[in-house]
Amino acid sequence: MKNDVAIVSIGDELLNGFTVDTNSSWIARFVSDYNLLNVRHKITLRDDSESIKSSLDFLLSKKCSFIFITGGLGSTHDDITRNALNDYFKSELILDNKHILYLKDKYPSLSLEIIKNQSKILSLGKPIPNNRGTAIGMSIPFSGSHIFILPGVPLEMKNMINSYISPVYIEPYYDKKIKYITILTTGIYETKLHEILGDIINSHKEQFQVSFLPNYMGVKIRLTAIDGVTSLNNFRNQIVSKIDRFVFGFNDDTIEEKVANLLIKNNLTLAIAESCTGGYLSKRLTDVPGSSKFYIGSVIAYSNEIKKNILNVDDKILQEKGAVSKESATMLAENIRKKFKSDIGIATTGISGPDGGNQEKPVGLIYIAISTKGNEIVKKFNLIPDRVKHRKSAVQVALNMLRLLIKNKNK
Amino acid sequence: MKNDVAIVSIGDELLNGFTVDTNSSWIARFVSDYNLLNVRHKITLRDDSESIKSSLDFLLSKKCSFIFITGGLGSTHDDITRNALNDYFKSELILDNKHILYLKDKYPSLSLEIIKNQSKILSLGKPIPNNRGTAIGMSIPFSGSHIFILPGVPLEMKNMINSYISPVYIEPYYDKKIKYITILTTGIYETKLHEILGDIINSHKEQFQVSFLPNYMGVKIRLTAIDGVTSLNNFRNQIVSKIDRFVFGFNDDTIEEKVANLLIKNNLTLAIAESCTGGYLSKRLTDVPGSSKFYIGSVIAYSNEIKKNILNVDDKILQEKGAVSKESATMLAENIRKKFKSDIGIATTGISGPDGGNQEKPVGLIYIAISTKGNEIVKKFNLIPDRVKHRKSAVQVALNMLRLLIKNKNK
Repeated sequence: MKNDVAIVSIGDELLNGFTVDTNSSWIARFVSDYNLLNVRHKITLRDDSESIKSSLDFLLSKKCSFIFITGGLGSTHDDITRNALNDYFKSELILDNKHILYLKDKYPSLSLEIIKNQSKILSLGKPIPNNRGTAIGMSIPFSGSHIFILPGVPLEMKNMINSYISPVYIEPYYDKKIKYITILTTGIYETKLHEILGDIINSHKEQFQVSFLPNYMGVKIRLTAIDGVTSLNNFRNQIVSKIDRFVFGFNDDTIEEKVANLLIKNNLTLAIAESCTGGYLSKRLTDVPGSSKFYIGSVIAYSNEIKKNILNVDDKILQEKGAVSKESATMLAENIRKKFKSDIGIATTGISGPDGGNQEKPVGLIYIAISTKGNEIVKKFNLIPDRVKHRKSAVQVALNMLRLLIKNKNK
Repeated sequence: MKNDVAIVSIGDELLNGFTVDTNSSWIARFVSDYNLLNVRHKITLRDDSESIKSSLDFLLSKKCSFIFITGGLGSTHDDITRNALNDYFKSELILDNKHILYLKDKYPSLSLEIIKNQSKILSLGKPIPNNRGTAIGMSIPFSGSHIFILPGVPLEMKNMINSYISPVYIEPYYDKKIKYITILTTGIYETKLHEILGDIINSHKEQFQVSFLPNYMGVKIRLTAIDGVTSLNNFRNQIVSKIDRFVFGFNDDTIEEKVANLLIKNNLTLAIAESCTGGYLSKRLTDVPGSSKFYIGSVIAYSNEIKKNILNVDDKILQEKGAVSKESATMLAENIRKKFKSDIGIATTGISGPDGGNQEKPVGLIYIAISTKGNEIVKKFNLIPDRVKHRKSAVQVALNMLRLLIKNKNK
């Protein structure tokens, strides 16, 4: 066996493009944490017996150690997957009595017909309990491979892998190993990162592979340990020490969580005045559980009347400098801080488009200001002139300005 | 040829689970609009020659009419895809001079080495121009199949399919046909829909397949025309006439766009007071281009101080009924409307969790109020007690209340 892993997703919705397959990515991330395991094949199939059988032929010929199959188990799919496998392995379908009792107890309104149907397994397989839904799973051993059959509902599938497949088939036989670390940066271009990190990357290229994954929110740096190496954390620290200012987290961290933690840790409160971002900055910060510990509230001053009447921006400034100006941004940040009695006020005012731009102030322009007692910062940016990307990156930039402000204050 | 289509995505990031494959879904949606074409296989592979070759063997044995291959073309991937195909077809690599001239003109700073590398095609193929990036694509005819090789960058890939593959290989030979319509509903459970639509669905089941795709934001109803049927629109209208009140749109429509259009058409302005949704409702509405035509602004009154001091909710109400109450919601909606001088005021106040709930007012509870001149609506909901889902569904419910209010006013 080559320790290769295959993932098969079954469902017409996946092949018509209506549903994006996130199950297979989740399984791939799960598998990739184990030292020797390597996802080699990912296949998506229709609810169709012939496709399932011919793909199994292919994957078994490749001698995969584990084959994860998700989807096509429910009664709405006519149980295509279960029947196709039963045919393929020339097995027979038997009822799992334990699962029948579980379903009768947990879903008393289900008909006996459905209960029996959801409790069928191949006689050559072993049941995989599902305590988040109705369809039972199976594990089928076959000429050195283990084939796992799981429902397509993400919650059920994940729970069955975590609580059954992992402890029975994976944990006892495979060591976990950090093979990947993703360093999350923002506020620096890929070319600049190459310049700063080129030497360190080159001098370690026998041990670590480094990929740069740039997008308009920032650059992710993925470190991959080449087989046999264990000191990925040490290498990570070396890289981070060179670009510390631009690193806001690792792997699945979010910048809003980092900002929230910094605010809470420093016992600071925040109020927000948003114009072009229209609530997006407030939304991101209140996504974080416990945000009421630091977040007071916001005024979204979309129209100039609100900037003037609620946030007291001088009419003269609005007339002479415009709503999208250094002066307006500064006044919005200062006034929201005072009005909402917070330690920090932050304001965004810009032109996200598609309309509203002109030669002097094009779509993409934005001013972001932060006001604290006795201190003001205001910055001008020309971000991507596309409404969706502009708003998203404006929020990212604003969060990063907050992060740097609090971090630097405490040095 | 069976008019079957295969989609192959190449890239280590896809098999490590770091990147979710959205390219293949986009291609599948594109292909599914043509009457006879049918996506039958979707395969994801590493940047690895052997995998590419063995998958081609498999797909060519299945006699697919079209095989779309994306990824692994750039110089960072060591051109795995191009070289693997060249080996497989025993062809040779030649330079496309037109593409070289294009790259020299558009990217003058690129080295000649990179330019040549990005301009290589198989001698048995035809070039597919890429005017959004550097890597040239190819089309390879082979024993009745057409194999298209495209870069993995979504923008480049989509542009090459739309502006070259479609007009040359697809449009002239295949008719477009609406095979699917998705009816978007919210505010009604799947079981209730079954009850109302059961008869109509049963009496058409030879012609149309109907699937219900429920989630906590609403139920999508997917209508699929069974081969040879043309009157999908007529069937759609029959269904909609039975559940009109719950249908907010079709296919890729969003409820915020529908609400924005209704507000603009009726010349109405809107102001928002948000508590638990923390800016999310405002964000969704300002996602819509042109939202400044109807949207004035918001106050996000996260802390009770702001509810009291900025939005003038009576201290007595906050003390006796609490911030999460019918009375607070109503007052927030009315006061934001008056303060911001809008036609409509809407307010949300609830408990998204994880903390803040108790037996009387559990996590999940929310009040949503709408105030217009001389009229008030306030509704209580117990939504999913999960922070992310609660906030998302609260916004959906609020938008749907706005939609129904404006729609009914104009009847």
